[in-house]
Amino acid sequence: MTKRKLVILTEGRLDVFSAKTAVSVIRYCREEVAAVIDSVNAGKDLESIIGIGKGIPIVSTVAETLPLKPTALLIGIAPPGGMLPAEWRKHITDALKNKLDIISGLHCHVSDDPEFSQLAHDHQREIWDVRKVSEDIPLGAVKAKETKTLRILTVGSDCNIGKMVTSIEITNAAKKRGINACFVATGQTGIMIEGSGIAVDHVISDFISGAAEKLVLDRARYRLLSIEGQGTIVHPAYSGVTLGLLHGSAPQGLILCHQPARKTLRHFADFPILPLPYLIELYEKLAQPVHPCKVLGISLNCVGMSDNDALREIQKAEKETKLPATDPIKFGVEKFIDVIRPLLP
Amino acid sequence: MTKRKLVILTEGRLDVFSAKTAVSVIRYCREEVAAVIDSVNAGKDLESIIGIGKGIPIVSTVAETLPLKPTALLIGIAPPGGMLPAEWRKHITDALKNKLDIISGLHCHVSDDPEFSQLAHDHQREIWDVRKVSEDIPLGAVKAKETKTLRILTVGSDCNIGKMVTSIEITNAAKKRGINACFVATGQTGIMIEGSGIAVDHVISDFISGAAEKLVLDRARYRLLSIEGQGTIVHPAYSGVTLGLLHGSAPQGLILCHQPARKTLRHFADFPILPLPYLIELYEKLAQPVHPCKVLGISLNCVGMSDNDALREIQKAEKETKLPATDPIKFGVEKFIDVIRPLLP
Repeated sequence: MTKRKLVILTEGRLDVFSAKTAVSVIRYCREEVAAVIDSVNAGKDLESIIGIGKGIPIVSTVAETLPLKPTALLIGIAPPGGMLPAEWRKHITDALKNKLDIISGLHCHVSDDPEFSQLAHDHQREIWDVRKVSEDIPLGAVKAKETKTLRILTVGSDCNIGKMVTSIEITNAAKKRGINACFVATGQTGIMIEGSGIAVDHVISDFISGAAEKLVLDRARYRLLSIEGQGTIVHPAYSGVTLGLLHGSAPQGLILCHQPARKTLRHFADFPILPLPYLIELYEKLAQPVHPCKVLGISLNCVGMSDNDALREIQKAEKETKLPATDPIKFGVEKFIDVIRPLLP
Repeated sequence: MTKRKLVILTEGRLDVFSAKTAVSVIRYCREEVAAVIDSVNAGKDLESIIGIGKGIPIVSTVAETLPLKPTALLIGIAPPGGMLPAEWRKHITDALKNKLDIISGLHCHVSDDPEFSQLAHDHQREIWDVRKVSEDIPLGAVKAKETKTLRILTVGSDCNIGKMVTSIEITNAAKKRGINACFVATGQTGIMIEGSGIAVDHVISDFISGAAEKLVLDRARYRLLSIEGQGTIVHPAYSGVTLGLLHGSAPQGLILCHQPARKTLRHFADFPILPLPYLIELYEKLAQPVHPCKVLGISLNCVGMSDNDALREIQKAEKETKLPATDPIKFGVEKFIDVIRPLLP
């Protein structure tokens, strides 16, 4: 595979909240990112805005990025209201005309747009809608557990709480220790970072387990699969995806992700975040009949806390659950590798 | 709505196992069924083959049914291998040419077939693919629990164990007692019987809860919604659908469906059916954080047992769970109505 050189479109939405995908791609694919397109912030220092990405230029147009020889335009944000603003359309058409591929995580598929698909055809470019699910996903057939690979799935006390980051950090730390590990992406940002995966929340619901199983079977040659979880088992809107992923991927171990400062579910203020022991018991009891597994560690997202406060939360979680806990971004995931390593095939 | 007069296509697959949909439609819509088309069994007595449907003629062709003035051809079976056999295609084209609508539960959509859709257009007929999901399903927004209606969901120890039948029997028994009740169909056969519903296993997985919620909101005017469950919470392939339905429909009460003679999951012989108390605790614990509810009764499917053996199983289940149990087909569901009634708004 030719090395990607990405231009990331964030057009007017360049902050850590709106541009979550952009921020993660910059964090984990720093050396592949050539520039950010954002006419509102053009010329500013990227690192001072989002805390990472030192040295990556912010420009206004695709044309300005061409001297950097980019290979693809990556759309890492969702448009307000679901429709593509005219300004964004222009960036996409400019990119295609200048022989860039398009990588999009938008709900509406860029490749379904007649103008874009014609341009892509004319200029022999690819439009990769990462949420688009291929047609060949089978029904679940309980085959993941027959693979010899060690399957570690992140689960959570809520959505958007650190499951992807934890799974990537585990993969990277394992690789550093010489373990043949693979990050298994199940959501749009993870897929963009890894370059492969299935957006399980876009699969027909009968096939969630089948999609998770396929992800495992296609990567069974690795010793360790670090599988990105989705949602939470007690989420009023997305629990089905969480459970299908748990049963389909048949993990031997779980890492439970949690944010100590968060008291209620994101966007669902009436729902308190549940105590860690309740969640641990529930996840293990649900996994048990299909493929028994244990929660192996607690991944805490202590963003915005001082290191001291974070350490206090870590100790509290360890005491409450009798499991190793860490904040992957602040303190790394060596504690997890220590409990994962003895389970390796 | 004009009264339907259905011709049911079972072509060579007329037995209680292969023609499950046909059998259920005949059971619950007896007065709407004009004839069965099955060239292998033409002229035979329907009741002697499937145990119900006394007096419904079995014929070989659509032409023979025309004197009965049918309004629709209902395809209640799945073709071997997924492709429509030529013989079946002929029945469908004959039906459309003779001004019958088509009702299909096939995985492949009849309306997507160019020949059929052209014929339907030419003859101004409708093709209703009951598995086809409309585009306007929203994400779950936890609104079902704000409705005043009493929501009773069937859940199960396995797939194909009696959830649809139990939900329909509860609806019918409630109506007989003067309760304004509605059966909420979530699978193809239920939708064919009720004439409306959503095949939740065909919804994009992010929208399972949203689909369940929409079903409830659209029927909130009823005092009692008897909601058809799907799968089981511990099913290796379909658990995601089960959980999304549980959280999205926000039931106040559950009826747990079980078949005493079944020892392992259907098509998954390595998976023993779990003890009823384990399942009750798991369902209640999963529902709790989103919308607390209790299992109210146990619905036993004692098909093939003597009434005495069935009564013994019922007593055993009642002793094990301290909940009322019955076999809806053998002994009715009055016991369930007795526990549901006090909960009505």
